[in-house]
Amino acid sequence: MLASVSDRRLIAGGQVVTASSVFRADVLVADGLIVAVGRELDAAGAELIDATGCYVLPGAIDAHTHVSMPAGPVVTVDDYDTATAAAAMGGTTTIIDFVIQRPGQGVAEALSGWRAKLDACPLWVDVGFHFACVDLGVPGALEELAMLPEQGISSFKLFMAYSGTLMVSDRTMLEVMRVAAASGVLVLVHCENGDVVDHLVAGALARGDVSPVWHARTRPPVAETEATGRAIALAAVVGAALYIVHVSCQGALAAVTAARAAGQAVLAETCPQYLRFTESDLDRDGFEGARYVCSPPLRSAADQEALWRALAAGGLDAVNSDHCPFRLADQKTLGRHDFSLIPNGVSGVEERVMLLYDLGVRTGRISLSRWVELVATAPARIFGLAPRKGSVVPGADADLVVFDPARPRKLSASSQRSAADHSLYEGVEVAGSPSWVLLRGEPVVADGMFVGDAPRGEWVARARVGEGSTRVRLTT
Amino acid sequence: MLASVSDRRLIAGGQVVTASSVFRADVLVADGLIVAVGRELDAAGAELIDATGCYVLPGAIDAHTHVSMPAGPVVTVDDYDTATAAAAMGGTTTIIDFVIQRPGQGVAEALSGWRAKLDACPLWVDVGFHFACVDLGVPGALEELAMLPEQGISSFKLFMAYSGTLMVSDRTMLEVMRVAAASGVLVLVHCENGDVVDHLVAGALARGDVSPVWHARTRPPVAETEATGRAIALAAVVGAALYIVHVSCQGALAAVTAARAAGQAVLAETCPQYLRFTESDLDRDGFEGARYVCSPPLRSAADQEALWRALAAGGLDAVNSDHCPFRLADQKTLGRHDFSLIPNGVSGVEERVMLLYDLGVRTGRISLSRWVELVATAPARIFGLAPRKGSVVPGADADLVVFDPARPRKLSASSQRSAADHSLYEGVEVAGSPSWVLLRGEPVVADGMFVGDAPRGEWVARARVGEGSTRVRLTT
Amino acid sequence: MLASVSDRRLIAGGQVVTASSVFRADVLVADGLIVAVGRELDAAGAELIDATGCYVLPGAIDAHTHVSMPAGPVVTVDDYDTATAAAAMGGTTTIIDFVIQRPGQGVAEALSGWRAKLDACPLWVDVGFHFACVDLGVPGALEELAMLPEQGISSFKLFMAYSGTLMVSDRTMLEVMRVAAASGVLVLVHCENGDVVDHLVAGALARGDVSPVWHARTRPPVAETEATGRAIALAAVVGAALYIVHVSCQGALAAVTAARAAGQAVLAETCPQYLRFTESDLDRDGFEGARYVCSPPLRSAADQEALWRALAAGGLDAVNSDHCPFRLADQKTLGRHDFSLIPNGVSGVEERVMLLYDLGVRTGRISLSRWVELVATAPARIFGLAPRKGSVVPGADADLVVFDPARPRKLSASSQRSAADHSLYEGVEVAGSPSWVLLRGEPVVADGMFVGDAPRGEWVARARVGEGSTRVRLTT
Amino acid sequence: MLASVSDRRLIAGGQVVTASSVFRADVLVADGLIVAVGRELDAAGAELIDATGCYVLPGAIDAHTHVSMPAGPVVTVDDYDTATAAAAMGGTTTIIDFVIQRPGQGVAEALSGWRAKLDACPLWVDVGFHFACVDLGVPGALEELAMLPEQGISSFKLFMAYSGTLMVSDRTMLEVMRVAAASGVLVLVHCENGDVVDHLVAGALARGDVSPVWHARTRPPVAETEATGRAIALAAVVGAALYIVHVSCQGALAAVTAARAAGQAVLAETCPQYLRFTESDLDRDGFEGARYVCSPPLRSAADQEALWRALAAGGLDAVNSDHCPFRLADQKTLGRHDFSLIPNGVSGVEERVMLLYDLGVRTGRISLSRWVELVATAPARIFGLAPRKGSVVPGADADLVVFDPARPRKLSASSQRSAADHSLYEGVEVAGSPSWVLLRGEPVVADGMFVGDAPRGEWVARARVGEGSTRVRLTT
Repeated sequence: MLASVSDRRLIAGGQVVTASSVFRADVLVADGLIVAVGRELDAAGAELIDATGCYVLPGAIDAHTHVSMPAGPVVTVDDYDTATAAAAMGGTTTIIDFVIQRPGQGVAEALSGWRAKLDACPLWVDVGFHFACVDLGVPGALEELAMLPEQGISSFKLFMAYSGTLMVSDRTMLEVMRVAAASGVLVLVHCENGDVVDHLVAGALARGDVSPVWHARTRPPVAETEATGRAIALAAVVGAALYIVHVSCQGALAAVTAARAAGQAVLAETCPQYLRFTESDLDRDGFEGARYVCSPPLRSAADQEALWRALAAGGLDAVNSDHCPFRLADQKTLGRHDFSLIPNGVSGVEERVMLLYDLGVRTGRISLSRWVELVATAPARIFGLAPRKGSVVPGADADLVVFDPARPRKLSASSQRSAADHSLYEGVEVAGSPSWVLLRGEPVVADGMFVGDAPRGEWVARARVGEGSTRVRLTT
Repeated sequence: MLASVSDRRLIAGGQVVTASSVFRADVLVADGLIVAVGRELDAAGAELIDATGCYVLPGAIDAHTHVSMPAGPVVTVDDYDTATAAAAMGGTTTIIDFVIQRPGQGVAEALSGWRAKLDACPLWVDVGFHFACVDLGVPGALEELAMLPEQGISSFKLFMAYSGTLMVSDRTMLEVMRVAAASGVLVLVHCENGDVVDHLVAGALARGDVSPVWHARTRPPVAETEATGRAIALAAVVGAALYIVHVSCQGALAAVTAARAAGQAVLAETCPQYLRFTESDLDRDGFEGARYVCSPPLRSAADQEALWRALAAGGLDAVNSDHCPFRLADQKTLGRHDFSLIPNGVSGVEERVMLLYDLGVRTGRISLSRWVELVATAPARIFGLAPRKGSVVPGADADLVVFDPARPRKLSASSQRSAADHSLYEGVEVAGSPSWVLLRGEPVVADGMFVGDAPRGEWVARARVGEGSTRVRLTT
Repeated sequence: MLASVSDRRLIAGGQVVTASSVFRADVLVADGLIVAVGRELDAAGAELIDATGCYVLPGAIDAHTHVSMPAGPVVTVDDYDTATAAAAMGGTTTIIDFVIQRPGQGVAEALSGWRAKLDACPLWVDVGFHFACVDLGVPGALEELAMLPEQGISSFKLFMAYSGTLMVSDRTMLEVMRVAAASGVLVLVHCENGDVVDHLVAGALARGDVSPVWHARTRPPVAETEATGRAIALAAVVGAALYIVHVSCQGALAAVTAARAAGQAVLAETCPQYLRFTESDLDRDGFEGARYVCSPPLRSAADQEALWRALAAGGLDAVNSDHCPFRLADQKTLGRHDFSLIPNGVSGVEERVMLLYDLGVRTGRISLSRWVELVATAPARIFGLAPRKGSVVPGADADLVVFDPARPRKLSASSQRSAADHSLYEGVEVAGSPSWVLLRGEPVVADGMFVGDAPRGEWVARARVGEGSTRVRLTT
Repeated sequence: MLASVSDRRLIAGGQVVTASSVFRADVLVADGLIVAVGRELDAAGAELIDATGCYVLPGAIDAHTHVSMPAGPVVTVDDYDTATAAAAMGGTTTIIDFVIQRPGQGVAEALSGWRAKLDACPLWVDVGFHFACVDLGVPGALEELAMLPEQGISSFKLFMAYSGTLMVSDRTMLEVMRVAAASGVLVLVHCENGDVVDHLVAGALARGDVSPVWHARTRPPVAETEATGRAIALAAVVGAALYIVHVSCQGALAAVTAARAAGQAVLAETCPQYLRFTESDLDRDGFEGARYVCSPPLRSAADQEALWRALAAGGLDAVNSDHCPFRLADQKTLGRHDFSLIPNGVSGVEERVMLLYDLGVRTGRISLSRWVELVATAPARIFGLAPRKGSVVPGADADLVVFDPARPRKLSASSQRSAADHSLYEGVEVAGSPSWVLLRGEPVVADGMFVGDAPRGEWVARARVGEGSTRVRLTT
């Protein structure tokens, strides 16, 4: 465990932004917790952080990252050290990462393996775990899954794509969902029909269509839409609470919208890359498109507009990064002559909060409060971290961000904390960035600089769906 | 202006409920404003209000009341004295009431007439005004409407029903909406097709169908659904921000949902009566049904379920009362032999917050935070009162409610503050009720009792749509 | 009156095309009726018409024409002579034209006025009447309307646009629809919100936007979609059978589709101009766009695709012309400096059947049988002319078309029978055309040439909705 | 096989009903074909069949039967003798039966096995084959499938339920659909999610819920709706023409409707049992419910209404029987203590045409023409039998039915031709029935009596989708 932090700090002069209000107030921190929010606080002896002209936000939560994740012959390049450092630099103070079972591997074994990776690294922000179920054939798997919430893991993930490795059958989905429903666990699903993808990939390769853009053309919106509808149907059958990860297209959105209107508990996220890039980026000259290979693939401008409308109108609940970094030099290049061998994934844990501010708040598409809700408050609530995380309220962990809307940052592989050798956002200058990031009251970023003196991140247990204030709801 | 209030008060020991969080904190009040929210507040000299075991809420906003409103031969029975006292007793610290133009009457004239009614009464809570446009034939009407936002009136209302008195043509709607769009004004619409209603009423009366239940049968859901769709279409034509009042049925909800999914700025409310009663209440023995006559009429259980789903999932934005009280003894009875002569309207300004807690929070249909959002935070944001009202944040008016979930209240005509001679909720015991209600820091309700010493309510100006933090958004 | 025709004719060697089959057969005609359809017919003494290589169709029905119709300062240029001659040349053997009441004019008076126009002309094909209701303020109007079916007029029309002349209120619509529902009458509605149009037109003119393309921009799809939804709602209120004329856009189609799926009797047509041209044609150089001014206006390519899908899949029931010809030289030019003064209407009674063959059958969008259904069988059934018209069956009027798919025709103002001085299709060569057109067994067109010896057209009475085989159905 | 038939017959005095018209005409038959349809036919020497007061219909086509089909431990009780005799008695002159591949069995082997069953029986009506693909693991399976159209088999079937026996993966569906799309083959799909069913069945049995009604409760509408949506998505991916068999619920209908509106070639049928019975019949006393066990299961009254609306409005294309008869005495009883062991299937090949007349035409839900379209013309067109079958047109096979609307028939196991020992319709008296049924001009039923002298049925080859007049269209 980390050292007890007894210092008092006053974040003074800023505009506090919560998911429901924006107001001028100071925030007083003591013993790692938020103590008070107000205008005439007794901050005797407190260290002052000047937030004049800045927004004071709850530390953001990134509920979708893939750290040190094996993917065929390669592994994502960020370990928990670089990933959490990157998160901190972007204003994210908690990530929820995926423990992924290997076929034949027991649940506890999978978990301890990932825990070992975690323990081997300094943590610059807090880390929680989802558990991705791949194989129920292991004796006792369902029973072990049912115990995970007690160990602070209250979300399971299922993949409907990646046949032969991660993809599970409808039968498996139903069994996992049934356990989840009985155990207060939220079920996350990667919705793409793997058989459709395989069929189209085989056809494309047989025709000699091997360039990166075929990644998108062989994973069409109908494959995502179908799988989304199916996941919703299966969840309805067993009464499980469902969370659709990385929604990218209009059809999937429509399926989510229809289910919610019918009263089903279906939550959904999208990711910055789907808001910023389109399929045309996969068709860039040469092998450039490989940088943009992620699944679901980048879509059309019309899909982007639909995602923005849903973010603004409440049809999507969160924006997480799906941070899944691969090197261009020796990993993405595996697919130089066969797009299907390009590792699937892009970075985003560092850029997410800033990008959504630039693309969403500055353009007027979403409000300041909605921004904070999407990157912090909603992920905290949905994933069982509220009220400890995600809000600027007394009693919460003093995970705070001073976001300076007038402090531009140029994004680049050369300056990012992630170990990736490239950045989708190379050279992009965002208008605002975090000047201070506190984890339980202690600065991880100070005046825009990473403070690498003492890693204070911890593994965090998360509450069950429906416990405390974390009951799955479609709204605040 | 009211007397300056310099006392300091500490609401201590409660659970603060905001639209995005629930947390244990004290709230410090000084000079009529919230000063700090926290756990170790310096409250030297402050008067203590013990909120242990209670929820501390922002004062609720009821954005839909009809005080001293003429309706044919009668007038609603509450003036601003009794209406605001009733509001206070129910935890509502601001009402927004409708100034209604008479045919041929100028805008300023209408406004000054209503202002006179207001000035003649003690106000126990704050009062704002909407302006209901009935007649554009008056010279200069559109120009005068365009000036209203500068006078703190930033919402217009249009009626699509009540031909001959309030109903306006599509032509008028378009002109008013165009001015609204250009002036930062939100347009509220009563959506029922008046011609359909008249046609069906004439048929019913011709057949001798005169009992109260025919009120509902002659105002079928299709009349509301059609008008809702039309209001949305007209608003789309001129780019006006739209707010549908008292949505009561599935078809209207579906129209709102579709418009929002398409990116249009359409907001909507429902009212407690639509959540609690059904058309069958209009068919009670004898003339009992007359009590329940309001428009749109009470609907089916299936419509109720759809309203609850929308409240939970974000498809509706607010719950207001449409408080429109008539006496049973000598007003409702005008329609004893002809349902179409029964004055349309029911009470609710006192009961709304408690009812939504009972029917929504206690049943698990909505969360504590969603409750507060629906009755306080959202109305404040939508109608230009945020951040001054609607949230428990430093700098806001200290309009606060200590809501005791274990303090039952029996609703009854005999105990209500409204001047009505009956109550739809006669004998109903709600589980929780406000023990303290503060307006700018001063108690209006103390330990559950009305404090009638000094009326401190004020008329409140509201900001334009799109100004400050009040920009019309579909989400927080 | 019909001259007694005793000749026998055998249309031999063709492919008979009906709405449900295509088959090789001869058609024997005697005494103006179809006597037999077969392969070994006893045709002794019959005159032979060689249909080898041709399709033998039922004479087409054009249920939407405007002959000698006043439109403000002008009148459509075709009288019943030129209009019926044009119809015949295009393979249409019955038109249903609109009697249009003038404000203040009695129903019988309106009817007799139009009947006089008809009687003044030679008729080359049969003619039926719809009755367009404009003013119910005339004493006895509703009673007179109720009598029309007995006089062979079983369809009423209502306009939701053209304020000040044709447009009616919802109140009037409901009253007319109620009479229609009680009298076995189908209600046709022109669905555009006239107030929306007026509002936008006034705005455009005020800005100086006066060119023809503003005709389309001031009658946007939302105006048609809204009105379509409203017409459907009003029809539902009183239980009237509804027929939406000239559907042009996706939104209106969607409203029709939803109503039909819910079981409501809603029928709908489109017209060739919406399948062939787009809004861009209104933006042609100079004043060229004025030729294309009709209402609803021409739409987008996406709308066209939706119309084709609906024609193929059954979502639309008929294709009629809305033939409404104005001269370019001295009529359309009235709007040279103000698009709103351009008379609304285009030609099509001659071109319709050929265009739908070219644009629909030859492209594979619709089948031969569907073509015949859309231009002949469905209009006959819907409008009370079946089984006498619209099918190649024994006992029916021998209104027959020998359509030669290999006989091209160049469309041109110079060769058309219509009196218009221009053609939207100037220079267009269609691949196939009628070589023979028989009216009750007698040639009106022979070997592609107009046979102007004896006008044998008659005014035709039509059966009530629901009578005989003409009950309003959504399918065959 | 077919004896040469040279007799001429005249079906005289009836009302001919086609899919698009109803008219008084005689039908002349010679050499097994329809020669002429008319009123003054030269019928010298022809045998007369008096159809006065009757409807003359094309012989009906039942495109969904299961003759001699193994189902686990049992086999459907009708062979091609009894099944075709039953068909004839009901006015059906062609059935299309399912050849079902066994796992591991080659395509040709499967086909020859079923052909042998066929050849062993006298055939009283014509018989065609669909091919149900179960296992693509057999070498050359896809190549053999691609050859089937040349052998007159132009439709494949896939099962999404019945895991372990018939159910196929999405991967297999895609491969079969791709071959179908390339070969002009229509793909029929049984849409129920087998994994959902298995999951729910296991749960029910574990709980001891073993009675017949649990058959329905473990195959809920969501299982059918999901699978229908998935089949549509997969067909869209490869461009295959799709036909959904036995649609039973609103959700599946909605999926079909949406796909059609989007322009996809999706056809669909329902069956009489879904129009006549509901889930409550499965809950009859004792084991009675077992009679009603079929899949998808019987649904609700609301589902029935939706099916009727779709039949009337064109949302469904055909009504076939899914004739799949099992004995109650020794077959259905296998599931006496476990509903999941009850053989799935009910009878209907004899009753279908009469039931649809009674339930649909006599009630006014559908017209005479629509009845004929649903049971004869549409199945013939969709499955490549038109113009030879399905219409009363010259040149077609003289498969004709004289249907007497005033000849009641009491349905009963004791009088039916099927070998089943019970009837769902025991004791039901339908109002009308076939008095004469001709196959290629020769009576199989004469004056209501089965004529068992000479079996003249033949196996019929069917044309490819898109060939001749059989191109897959959503409308006539």
